[in-house]
Amino acid sequence: MTQAILLNAFHQNCVGHQSCGLWRHPRDRSADYKNLSYWTDLAKTLERGLFDGIFLADVSGVYDVYEGTPDAALRTATQVPANDPFTIVPAMAAVTEHLCFGITGSIPYEPPYAFARRISSLDHLTSGRIAWNVVTGYLDSAAKALGLSHQTSHDTRYDIADEYMELVYKLWEGSWADDAVIQDRQRGVFADPSKVRKITHDGEYFKLDAIHLCEPSAQRSPVIFQAGASPRGRQFAGRHAECVFIAGNTPEGVAGTVSDLRNITEDLGRAAADIKIFTMISIIVDETDALAAEKLQDYQQYVQPEGALALMSGWSGVDLSEYGPDESVENASTQAVQSAMQAVGSRSIREWGELLSVGGAAPTIVGSPSTVADQLQMWMDRSGVDGFNLSYTVMPECIESIVDLLVPELQSRGVYKTRYTQGSMREKLFHLGPRLQSPHPAASYRF
Amino acid sequence: MTQAILLNAFHQNCVGHQSCGLWRHPRDRSADYKNLSYWTDLAKTLERGLFDGIFLADVSGVYDVYEGTPDAALRTATQVPANDPFTIVPAMAAVTEHLCFGITGSIPYEPPYAFARRISSLDHLTSGRIAWNVVTGYLDSAAKALGLSHQTSHDTRYDIADEYMELVYKLWEGSWADDAVIQDRQRGVFADPSKVRKITHDGEYFKLDAIHLCEPSAQRSPVIFQAGASPRGRQFAGRHAECVFIAGNTPEGVAGTVSDLRNITEDLGRAAADIKIFTMISIIVDETDALAAEKLQDYQQYVQPEGALALMSGWSGVDLSEYGPDESVENASTQAVQSAMQAVGSRSIREWGELLSVGGAAPTIVGSPSTVADQLQMWMDRSGVDGFNLSYTVMPECIESIVDLLVPELQSRGVYKTRYTQGSMREKLFHLGPRLQSPHPAASYRF
Repeated sequence: MTQAILLNAFHQNCVGHQSCGLWRHPRDRSADYKNLSYWTDLAKTLERGLFDGIFLADVSGVYDVYEGTPDAALRTATQVPANDPFTIVPAMAAVTEHLCFGITGSIPYEPPYAFARRISSLDHLTSGRIAWNVVTGYLDSAAKALGLSHQTSHDTRYDIADEYMELVYKLWEGSWADDAVIQDRQRGVFADPSKVRKITHDGEYFKLDAIHLCEPSAQRSPVIFQAGASPRGRQFAGRHAECVFIAGNTPEGVAGTVSDLRNITEDLGRAAADIKIFTMISIIVDETDALAAEKLQDYQQYVQPEGALALMSGWSGVDLSEYGPDESVENASTQAVQSAMQAVGSRSIREWGELLSVGGAAPTIVGSPSTVADQLQMWMDRSGVDGFNLSYTVMPECIESIVDLLVPELQSRGVYKTRYTQGSMREKLFHLGPRLQSPHPAASYRF
Repeated sequence: MTQAILLNAFHQNCVGHQSCGLWRHPRDRSADYKNLSYWTDLAKTLERGLFDGIFLADVSGVYDVYEGTPDAALRTATQVPANDPFTIVPAMAAVTEHLCFGITGSIPYEPPYAFARRISSLDHLTSGRIAWNVVTGYLDSAAKALGLSHQTSHDTRYDIADEYMELVYKLWEGSWADDAVIQDRQRGVFADPSKVRKITHDGEYFKLDAIHLCEPSAQRSPVIFQAGASPRGRQFAGRHAECVFIAGNTPEGVAGTVSDLRNITEDLGRAAADIKIFTMISIIVDETDALAAEKLQDYQQYVQPEGALALMSGWSGVDLSEYGPDESVENASTQAVQSAMQAVGSRSIREWGELLSVGGAAPTIVGSPSTVADQLQMWMDRSGVDGFNLSYTVMPECIESIVDLLVPELQSRGVYKTRYTQGSMREKLFHLGPRLQSPHPAASYRF
């Protein structure tokens, strides 16, 4: 029996996130990302479909490795322009009650004190529906926006991230006692000062001497999301993450990542079930297999492979414009390209770009509700993931068709919730309390 | 004939902003600041009353000069706990069409690249209803939260601010041409790369080499608000500000500040009318003078003067707990204390704290709609301000009574708008275009 499937919508506050060129489709509305109603409408649709969350990716730079310029990304609206993901969450929260929000926040670009405060503020406003996707940055263009000449080395970024985590845990968990806020109108005591303490931190990368500015929110520490696939990234996930976002082309390949992540988590003293693992999938669903196949064909007319190649060049650091369109992608053999190649199979550069342009570097499942449900169940059973991050194609019909056609099918099979669990995001996901518990490192910093 | 009066509600994302202790009032709901509905309800009320804007103050530290601890501030909920002001704006924007948002953003705590992006994102989502209140920070406690031992010196803070402004203007005005985004679905060109350029900045305090991540928003640069009263602060206002927030106890005293600010603005090549000046006022209005006076008396039962003294100690750097409650406040004679004293008149420390606890360091006008309207008109005519920043007392009845009782009175006198002007905040305020024009320095950085 397949366990209940978790679903996150995978978005970015931009036009083209993973599907390059589909903004050109006559029915696509993704260029309306600048309007609040685009996001509030989407949030309502997702809640109607009992989605667990919306996972908001973000990058603070542009994809300028391809041809050495951001031109391809700009032409194809591939992750640029890209607005701040935090700004769309409060409006979506105001029109929903249960939908949760995973927000990407990049450690190098946010001083920890202000960042911890922003997250706590959102955790308050959403009654505990906030997750933070911890990223350490990878684009040189982003580093240059900070005044650096290039990115800090990969492993150093994770050392900085470990210290950053310690510091924000201290602020979230350790500055205010549970019973600090008493709101005693009679005695005139809002917060008991003996229950609020300064966090004093003097580390290698950060220094701080201050109380956290926010009273305790539902979750204190947000749900921690992580997506790094490197060995160091997996160690970080094993230690900190509650949700991990991975990718892979086959259930068997993904199963290897899943078991590696769960082993690392156990090695670090936590239970294998303490992390929920989501793999990236794209879904094109329609009433019948034939209609879904037609839809895919229709979408394919609008793809812009140069956007996908710009993305892949940015991820890998290899300028793929230097290879001929018919050349095998295996020639561009960095680790990142190889692993992406593994995700979609070996192709020519051109085919690869076209394939990536519908749904991104993830398998695209195309078919009737029954076909797609079979596939998702097969993925669940064989890979051991807990659910999927669904990258979009044409918006909003992509999400609407999943909600209207696929969700009822999954529900009728008993593999998808028929109502939300009450409480915070952490309670909805783990059916325990709203707060992180020992042996998670955050718990050790409690007041 | 009095010119049309502009009204901003003056708030902070916290419990007690200026009125210390009024959270204890049985009808007060300010402790609900953690809930989105508190803010969306407020926004709807303000828009019903045709308020020009909500001005959101913020401090990134705590008031810990009084008694050398933050205890008084914590007990009285005086500006602590304090959540991030940016997080409440998108939800308020989603339930309003015209209400504008002045958000305090502190230069030392936000890297310019991410900050410029956050503002542009909000300007998009609100269709150009965003103002930024530029502050340079003043609390040592805030500096310590950044890992510094104390605040940078006052004038250096303004030097840093000048360079920061140059950099964010470059990002907002100079990175994307007006016609960069063409959204040509046929040709497959979302943005024309030749119309998007990198901003390269290598200054004394900041370095950056990146394109702005956001496509052009309605206003590009947000409306610039400024509140510093020092000579250096006024120079900064004369150069950059479009709205200035001041305070003073008498119309005559305020008139001096107003004429000084307009002179400085003209000396810097701009027109005197290029800045709108708001002075801080608190209003307690009821159907009759007698009822309003009763309301004031009722409120006064709940004040917590130690909160006001904690605020004043933080502002001045003088620990007012070292003075006896019956001692004259003139003994504590720093410039900040003197100027606050000027704002409320000479008193004993105790009286001063009590007085400041209703409405803050601003005159409190108490009376019937007719009495309050007379006073506001008198203030307008004698001081030369353009409007008022209204600090709250008991929430939300304070704002509701202004909207329901005072606004109709002002409208019947022809001194308050009867409908909103269409367009962005800048168009509503200045009845010109949505963008800053020469000789404002921002205009010189246009693409």
